[in-house]
Amino acid sequence: MVDPIHYEDIEVGSVTCYGNYAVTREEVIEFASKYDPQPFHLSDEAAAQTYFGRLSASGWHTAAMAMRMLVDNMQAGRPTASLGSPGIDEIRWRKPVYPGDRLRVENQLLSKRRSTSRPDMGLTRSKSTIYNQDDEVVMTLIANGLIRVRHPEVAGD
Amino acid sequence: MVDPIHYEDIEVGSVTCYGNYAVTREEVIEFASKYDPQPFHLSDEAAAQTYFGRLSASGWHTAAMAMRMLVDNMQAGRPTASLGSPGIDEIRWRKPVYPGDRLRVENQLLSKRRSTSRPDMGLTRSKSTIYNQDDEVVMTLIANGLIRVRHPEVAGD
Repeated sequence: MVDPIHYEDIEVGSVTCYGNYAVTREEVIEFASKYDPQPFHLSDEAAAQTYFGRLSASGWHTAAMAMRMLVDNMQAGRPTASLGSPGIDEIRWRKPVYPGDRLRVENQLLSKRRSTSRPDMGLTRSKSTIYNQDDEVVMTLIANGLIRVRHPEVAGD
Repeated sequence: MVDPIHYEDIEVGSVTCYGNYAVTREEVIEFASKYDPQPFHLSDEAAAQTYFGRLSASGWHTAAMAMRMLVDNMQAGRPTASLGSPGIDEIRWRKPVYPGDRLRVENQLLSKRRSTSRPDMGLTRSKSTIYNQDDEVVMTLIANGLIRVRHPEVAGD
């Protein structure tokens, strides 16, 4: 059985690149219809009168697509002993995401530390930058994560 | 025609309550299959081995449901001259959201200020607290928003 990536294995400063998400008109409208039915996320006509110019994805849809790329990357190759996320420290929607775009992610580990209350748990802080096919930054995200410690009995940072 | 809610109309400290979102098993699995296909968001069996205990919604799904409640509230009654959001300052996922839960939102306006570069635009910062049917806090969110100023020619905070 493959030994998953644990707290001890991850290196502060390391950068991981992944994802190639094709944004379709159908999916933009489907997500917005369910979760963010503002007119500029539903039709070109309504979006033409706004900053967006034409139909653009809900920012929450972009976050969800970034999550899917992260999970696909975690599940490809060697798994990660992830224990979920307690929260997000910052999201910035920097440019609209349009149907026809292709998205990718660069993820950098900013810091890590052992939990003081749970020695079997480590906390991570990482920054994801989501780019479109023109290498424009469309979204940035600073996320907290929880990851299993392989050797809780060994003291350490 | 109804005059939408503008920057001048919103009051710092005011609290708005809205939403009654029924979380279904089908929707939890559908969202997770598309955007967060980690095992604990897909089946009770996989979730039983984790902190969640049983099938629980992706945190991004909870954020999306909160957005839907916000948009429904903005579109009910008097509209808001919203210009979208540049980003989020904090998300905390405090308790799992389970199929069968009912969610609601309390939204408090923390602060507002006029844009220095765009006199027709105001910036808002608000905190949303998402509760389940047992009045437990499942998520908190601090969001930035943009709203149209009714009288850009009048100086003011």
